[in-house]
Amino acid sequence: MTAQTLRGDVAVLVPAAGAGVRLGPGGPKALRELAGEPLLVHAVRRLSVAPSVGQIVVAAPAGDVEAVCGLLAPVAGVTVVAGGSSRQASVAAALAAADPGLGIVLVHDAARALAPPELVERVAAAVRSGLPAVIPVLAVVDTIKQVDDAGRVVGTVDRAVLRAVQTPQGFRRDVLTAAHAAAVDEHTDDAGLAEKLGVPVHTVEGDEAALKITRPLDLTIAAAILRS
Amino acid sequence: MTAQTLRGDVAVLVPAAGAGVRLGPGGPKALRELAGEPLLVHAVRRLSVAPSVGQIVVAAPAGDVEAVCGLLAPVAGVTVVAGGSSRQASVAAALAAADPGLGIVLVHDAARALAPPELVERVAAAVRSGLPAVIPVLAVVDTIKQVDDAGRVVGTVDRAVLRAVQTPQGFRRDVLTAAHAAAVDEHTDDAGLAEKLGVPVHTVEGDEAALKITRPLDLTIAAAILRS
Repeated sequence: MTAQTLRGDVAVLVPAAGAGVRLGPGGPKALRELAGEPLLVHAVRRLSVAPSVGQIVVAAPAGDVEAVCGLLAPVAGVTVVAGGSSRQASVAAALAAADPGLGIVLVHDAARALAPPELVERVAAAVRSGLPAVIPVLAVVDTIKQVDDAGRVVGTVDRAVLRAVQTPQGFRRDVLTAAHAAAVDEHTDDAGLAEKLGVPVHTVEGDEAALKITRPLDLTIAAAILRS
Repeated sequence: MTAQTLRGDVAVLVPAAGAGVRLGPGGPKALRELAGEPLLVHAVRRLSVAPSVGQIVVAAPAGDVEAVCGLLAPVAGVTVVAGGSSRQASVAAALAAADPGLGIVLVHDAARALAPPELVERVAAAVRSGLPAVIPVLAVVDTIKQVDDAGRVVGTVDRAVLRAVQTPQGFRRDVLTAAHAAAVDEHTDDAGLAEKLGVPVHTVEGDEAALKITRPLDLTIAAAILRS
């Protein structure tokens, strides 16, 4: 198998240093297997065939950098750096390693391993069109309630104005850099950092296949999506 | 196959008269097939083996009452009534046909065809313990944003206080009766009607298998859950 060559104008950062306790004890979440391959391999393969992508930077657990390099080398030419102790630190480490010539930066969770190349293109195109920050979103299907600490319903939230956020999230490079520089406490949502700076965040349509694979049932669902 | 006999203290109402356009054009949503059987059959089978259930009342499309009777007769002794033009009207029609001796009433969407008997028991037990209205809920996994009409992010919602609502929802019979009598506009959420009356609504833990099967992908997911 020949590794995919990357030629686009977009750098994609993949923080993949998390432990992923929700899938059960054991190795890093991004290295859990789906249909015989780690989630990270599935994610990188899909990123690498998106025409916009010019570089993929993976932040791996510090002790696993070499192993992750070996794992991904057959898939695509990928830059692997040591991640930090938090997702935010890992994104910052990956951003520091991104080619300064690439003006659009996407941040993508390896746990959304089946995000299709079309979704990557949609986010990248929206940033390229001039938007500073773009997130893929889906409508919220279930009725949503707000609850108090005792699990009692406080009220029904109008789901028509709510959207469930996916990744990859896309940014003008200077916007993502400024957002991370200004961050004071831990965030798992890069667009949230941009919002705090007052940067307008726009949405594009997400993709059901880009579900976050965190619970054991999600692996079953992801395997079904792969087969379908 | 012998139909399941029902002996519990709970009536379950199943509004199943909706057209379900989200699964594509064609017959009623509740009659779409999953693994060779209509969703409604899957739902009723699981309800019928929950020890608390004493009666199941299905509101079918007016033209399909006889066919639905024939479909469900081998599964369990089920009461089938003609549904109304809205979900709310169908719930009211089913409630009118429920045995007055059953003091606990659950309302269940046939589209949540794989809701397990354990979930039915959990909701029923909470109402039996004295709570007037009980809904099964799950934590919200994705980051949730509020958007404006132009699809621009207005803000990030604190998902820690949000819950995604499932069914069956459980009520003291007098509470559900009063809630439906007081309803002025169309509601798809029975607990929301109870909230409007000022009735406290409590939550119990939901179940991932009780997903709402509305989009084509959900059928794929549901089939995977059935196999696992």
